[in-house]
Amino acid sequence: MDFDTAEFEQRTARAQELMHTAGLDALFLMSEPEVRYITGFRTLFWQSPTRPWFVVVPAQGKPIAIVPAIGEPLMRTTWLDDIRCWSSPDADDDGISLLRSVLAEFSNIGVMMGRESQLRMPLSDFQKLQVDLAGTSFVDASPVIAELRFVKSEAEISVLSEICTIACNAFDQAGHLFHIGQPLNEAFRAFKIELLKQGAEDVPYLVGGVGRLGYADVISPPDSRQLNKADVLMLDTGATMKGYFCDFDRNFCLGDPENAVKQAHETLWLATEAGLQTARPGASCADIFNTMREVIGSRGGNVGRYGHGLGIQLTETPSLIDWDETILREGAVITLEPSMNVAGGDMLVHEENIVIRDGAPQMLTRRTPQQMPSI
Amino acid sequence: MDFDTAEFEQRTARAQELMHTAGLDALFLMSEPEVRYITGFRTLFWQSPTRPWFVVVPAQGKPIAIVPAIGEPLMRTTWLDDIRCWSSPDADDDGISLLRSVLAEFSNIGVMMGRESQLRMPLSDFQKLQVDLAGTSFVDASPVIAELRFVKSEAEISVLSEICTIACNAFDQAGHLFHIGQPLNEAFRAFKIELLKQGAEDVPYLVGGVGRLGYADVISPPDSRQLNKADVLMLDTGATMKGYFCDFDRNFCLGDPENAVKQAHETLWLATEAGLQTARPGASCADIFNTMREVIGSRGGNVGRYGHGLGIQLTETPSLIDWDETILREGAVITLEPSMNVAGGDMLVHEENIVIRDGAPQMLTRRTPQQMPSI
Repeated sequence: MDFDTAEFEQRTARAQELMHTAGLDALFLMSEPEVRYITGFRTLFWQSPTRPWFVVVPAQGKPIAIVPAIGEPLMRTTWLDDIRCWSSPDADDDGISLLRSVLAEFSNIGVMMGRESQLRMPLSDFQKLQVDLAGTSFVDASPVIAELRFVKSEAEISVLSEICTIACNAFDQAGHLFHIGQPLNEAFRAFKIELLKQGAEDVPYLVGGVGRLGYADVISPPDSRQLNKADVLMLDTGATMKGYFCDFDRNFCLGDPENAVKQAHETLWLATEAGLQTARPGASCADIFNTMREVIGSRGGNVGRYGHGLGIQLTETPSLIDWDETILREGAVITLEPSMNVAGGDMLVHEENIVIRDGAPQMLTRRTPQQMPSI
Repeated sequence: MDFDTAEFEQRTARAQELMHTAGLDALFLMSEPEVRYITGFRTLFWQSPTRPWFVVVPAQGKPIAIVPAIGEPLMRTTWLDDIRCWSSPDADDDGISLLRSVLAEFSNIGVMMGRESQLRMPLSDFQKLQVDLAGTSFVDASPVIAELRFVKSEAEISVLSEICTIACNAFDQAGHLFHIGQPLNEAFRAFKIELLKQGAEDVPYLVGGVGRLGYADVISPPDSRQLNKADVLMLDTGATMKGYFCDFDRNFCLGDPENAVKQAHETLWLATEAGLQTARPGASCADIFNTMREVIGSRGGNVGRYGHGLGIQLTETPSLIDWDETILREGAVITLEPSMNVAGGDMLVHEENIVIRDGAPQMLTRRTPQQMPSI
C-alpha cells in the first residue's frame, strides 16, 4: 500500500461527509483515479480496456469492491474487507449482476457525469443498470469528487514533492543530455532514461517542442528532426511516484536565444511570479488567471488556461481560467502554466508546481531561471 | 504521420463499408484508439481528462475532427481537411454545440457502447446531445469497430514486429539486468531502461511477479522485496513503437527452479504449442482456447482467458475464451497467454504474440524456451 490505512479512512470519511451534504446514500466509482483514491488499488492494468472495475462507497462503513478475479489478490492487500469477484471477461454479464445486487441497497447514487469525467464501463451496461434499478436515481457526483480530491493530505504532498524534485534533478542534467545535431526523439529518450535513473517510478507523460521562436505544438510525440543552434527545446513531463504526478516543463536554448524568445521567456517568468503572489487561500482560480493575464496581455497561447490541479492525475480540476471561481485552500496543489505567442503560431510555455499554504505557496518545483537558460 | 495517407484512406473506406452494412450514416468516435486509428492523431495528451476530442466519420468522404484548439496544430498534420476547434476547457459548452452541428446532419449514428468500450466524454454532455438531437438514433457501433480493427495491415504488422523484436532483445539481457538480492522495483527500472535503450519508443505497461512457486498477482506495481535464489521472476511488458503495443512476458529463475515450476513451465509451453497448431484462418478463438485448455486441464490461472487481440491497444478484442466464437482471419494479431496454477494461489503465465497467416502463424516474439530459463 502506498499510504497507511488511516489515510484511506480519512478520505472515505470525508467522502461520506460530502455525500451526506449532497444527499447521496452511495457513491458508485469506476475510474482509475477514484478507485485508487478510495481503496489504494494501484495497477497499470487499467490500460487494458477489457475489464470494468467497480467500487461502491456507502453512506457509512467501508467501501465495497466489485472486481474481476484477476484483481482480487491486489485488492486483498488494500484496507477493504468486502471484495466481490467474478471471472472476467464474461460473455453476457461482466460484473453487472454482482454490481446491481450491491447498488440495489441504495436509492440516490452518485456517479461522475460532469466536467472532466468519463464513463469507464460500457454505456450499454450502464443503461441496463438504470433500467434494472428503475426506482434508483443516478445523479452527478462530479462536484463531490472534485471537492474531495481538491485539498491534498501532507502524505500526498510529500509524494508530490518527491517526484517534482526528481524531475528537477533530471532537468539539471540538460547540459549533458541535449546537444546540437541530436534527433528530437533521442533527446526525449535520453531524458526519459535520466528521469528513471534519478528515481522516477514511471514516465507516463513526456511531450515537448522545438524551434527557433518556440513551438506551435505542445502535445506531439517527437519526430527525428535534429536540434539546431539557437533552437528552443521544451520538455514537459508527467513523471510519477506512487502513481502521483509532477507536471511541469523547462525550456533550454541551444546557444543564444532570439531576442523575441528572451523577452517572451522573461514575460512568462514574471507572469508566474504574479501568479505566485496571488496564489493564497481565499483567492479564486480566476484571480490567479487574471493576474497572469495582466502580465501577458492578449498574447496568450492556445492552451486555453494558465494552470490546473495536480495529484493522482496529470491534470485535475480546477482550471486557472477566467470562469473558474473555485476558491483556493491550504493544501491544494496546482500548476501555474502561462503560455505566450512569440511569433506566428509559435509560443513558449512555462510551468511550476505549487502547494497553497497559509502565506506564500510552497514550491514543489525549483523555480526556472528568469533568463532563458542556454546549454 | 506514422503511416501514409493511403493507410488511413483504406481504414476509412473499410469503416464506411461496415457502416453501410450496419445501416449507419455516421460513426461518432471519441476515444484515443479510434480517433488515432482513423486520423493518425497520436499524442500522450489523452492522459489529461480535461478536454474531449471528437471525430465523425460520414457515410462518404473524409472524417471531420472537432477538437480543442490546443490540438489543432497536430490535427493539421493528419490527412483530415475539416477540422473544427474551440478553446477548451469551456465553462458551459466544451465542444458540444460544435459537435451537435456536425451530428445534426445524420440520422443513425454509431457510438461505441458495447464490450470493452468507454464513454470518453462527460455522460451529462452525451445525454444532452441525445435530448438536443431527439430525432437521431445513437446505436451501438462496438461490433463495427471490433471488425474494423481486427485484421491488421502489413504496415501495422511491420510496426508490431519491430516492437516485439525490441522487447525480445531487451529480455535477452536478463542475465545482465537481474540478480539475487536486487529489489524488485530496481529490476523493473533496469528493464524499463533497457527497453528504451533497445529502441522502444515508450513503456506504458510493465507489470510482473516474483516467487518460488510463481506469483498470485500479475497486475501489481513492484515493491522493494529482494529477489531470492530459486525465485521465478516474471516481467510482462507493453512497450510501444508508433503507439503500437507488444504484450508478452518472460519468466526467469534465479538459479534452479522448483520441480513444480519446471513442470508448469513446460505444460504452458506445450499449451502454447497447441495454440500455435490451432491458430489458423477459419479456427475460432474458442477453438484455440479449448486446445490450450486440453493441455492445462483444470489448473488454469485467474486471468480469465488465454489470450486476446493486440495492436493499437495493449489488449483488443477478441478474447481467447470458450464463449468467443470470432473466426480468425489472415492478418489478425493475437497473443497466446496460457496461465496455470502451480501451488496454492501461485501461478505461471506465458505469452507470445503472433500474426494469423495462411498456414502456420507468424511469430512476432521469439519463442520462450521449453525449459524454464535460469539466470
